[in-house]
Amino acid sequence: MARWPTLTEDHTGARPAVCILDQTCLPAEVIMRRLDSVDAVATAIATMQVRGAPLIGVTAAYGVALGLQDDTSDEWLAQICAQLAATRPTAVNLQWALRRMQTMLQKSVLAGRRSLAWQQARALAEEDRAANAAIGEHGAELLARLSARSGNLQLMTHCNAGRLATVDHGTALAPVYARRRNGHDDHVWVSETRPRNQGLLTAWELADAGVRHTLIADNAAGLLLRQQRVDAVIVGADRIAANGDVANKVGTYLKALATRAAGVPFYVAAPCSTLDFACPDGDAIPIELRAADELGVASPTPMYNPAFDITPAELVTAVISERGVAAPAQLSQWR
Amino acid sequence: MARWPTLTEDHTGARPAVCILDQTCLPAEVIMRRLDSVDAVATAIATMQVRGAPLIGVTAAYGVALGLQDDTSDEWLAQICAQLAATRPTAVNLQWALRRMQTMLQKSVLAGRRSLAWQQARALAEEDRAANAAIGEHGAELLARLSARSGNLQLMTHCNAGRLATVDHGTALAPVYARRRNGHDDHVWVSETRPRNQGLLTAWELADAGVRHTLIADNAAGLLLRQQRVDAVIVGADRIAANGDVANKVGTYLKALATRAAGVPFYVAAPCSTLDFACPDGDAIPIELRAADELGVASPTPMYNPAFDITPAELVTAVISERGVAAPAQLSQWR
Repeated sequence: MARWPTLTEDHTGARPAVCILDQTCLPAEVIMRRLDSVDAVATAIATMQVRGAPLIGVTAAYGVALGLQDDTSDEWLAQICAQLAATRPTAVNLQWALRRMQTMLQKSVLAGRRSLAWQQARALAEEDRAANAAIGEHGAELLARLSARSGNLQLMTHCNAGRLATVDHGTALAPVYARRRNGHDDHVWVSETRPRNQGLLTAWELADAGVRHTLIADNAAGLLLRQQRVDAVIVGADRIAANGDVANKVGTYLKALATRAAGVPFYVAAPCSTLDFACPDGDAIPIELRAADELGVASPTPMYNPAFDITPAELVTAVISERGVAAPAQLSQWR
Repeated sequence: MARWPTLTEDHTGARPAVCILDQTCLPAEVIMRRLDSVDAVATAIATMQVRGAPLIGVTAAYGVALGLQDDTSDEWLAQICAQLAATRPTAVNLQWALRRMQTMLQKSVLAGRRSLAWQQARALAEEDRAANAAIGEHGAELLARLSARSGNLQLMTHCNAGRLATVDHGTALAPVYARRRNGHDDHVWVSETRPRNQGLLTAWELADAGVRHTLIADNAAGLLLRQQRVDAVIVGADRIAANGDVANKVGTYLKALATRAAGVPFYVAAPCSTLDFACPDGDAIPIELRAADELGVASPTPMYNPAFDITPAELVTAVISERGVAAPAQLSQWR
């Protein structure tokens, strides 16, 4: 498998653009899409062609750069930031990236905004790459303590918090990749992650990286944990509240409960841009409701499709960020 | 919607048969299949054309009657019982029904076995119908206590433990139907139940019965429970061990954990034929592994597909059987 980037700049055409790996087509087809407008970026985020909290933040930043090609005024800047922010409500990285872009650009003279926007989007992308690499190192160190007991690890993850959810390296999978590079041969239980099946994305990128893995229905996670066939569960996050409550892909909470019952650690890996100190706890995090047709059921049956759930801080063993490892009660050190 | 029976006898052809509602075609198509041999019955059970612990027990009993058309010897009887018992390992009702058929028939003279087999299979079907009706009454009484507080109830179930899983009435859904007949207007959260999507069967029969319901991805159950949007969870069972541990469709355990965390009751509804006092606890219950292709993923990804999981007795508020309601620690009263 070729190692397709999740997002690249493309300055070869009449208008500059970003090329994204269309994640709605994976793993069946590898298709890069060229986005050259704010509308195209907004649609790509809303439809989950690009997805993953860190990656949608960076993609939105590039969306701002694309938008400024047409108009660099404060009004237009505010409008496109609002449009991009409205695409998805739960992951705070999106708002964080847009706020950073807007604040930075407003300080600049109009004439300098176009090039500054590209420069800032690029900086965000580089920061994401670096943060995830650091998460990989910190997480690998943490997992080494478990590994000292059991050698190669049996890990479990949910959704896709791998390199596809980021500019590179991934969040939850970054430590797995770091361990792979260090010669470990861990095995990852990959949860299908209904209704959008992001587990297939995880299986695709783990295969690409030569990491052993097995796909399971989301329902099977409890059995495996109860049978003590999992050494640790590691997931990403879309927003972490000040008290350590974690919003992540729907189904994460069920895994966290079963992980606690099994007496093994539950780790959340996310860059500090996922921390939302303005949010006191999980109840204050907006949960995105998505279209019922994502369930893929052709029937008149009423359906309800929340995309995220809240895992209370008490079920989280530790948060791994680019700044290190902390218990959920100690996140304020990263403020 | 017409109210199709799950199983009927058919003595109109050259060979007698049973007609089953093919549950692999529902809800898209309503197809009755005529089974006139042991092989046909064994295949129907193994492929889940008929499914649900009580229903496969009764269907297997009819399979014995069909098998005796050809040969009524002890050897053949033992052989067809072994063949039918091997179709699915977890639900104990199958073994229970076959053991009962074999014991009864072995006591009879060869010449009387054919008609006795039909008579016994019919008796099992009638017992199932009556047991489930009684479960409906006992369960409705239990739910009335919750309902006294909140009026119409918000219930949640997993898989299909409705009339489709039985000869009639259902197990987990029997109390819901009893309440509907009594004028209540409860709402049921129906979990998709990957990988075989039996939640669609539940939605189909609830629609048929005029019970309000909403389909959700299995992953969404935790969020709804944490948001206190569920008054009680009620599921069926494939086998209940002597200590009260419950084997049921994979994913049940995750729901039970979230139910406990939400502080609401978790009920298991099953006829006494589901109790296995020879099984000390859940660890002794065989968990069926089914083909990876049930996940429906066209990929070289390694897959693991257990069909059941174990919910420990401590998470079960009460078991509802035809004999009443009991805490899991008090099941021996039904021995």
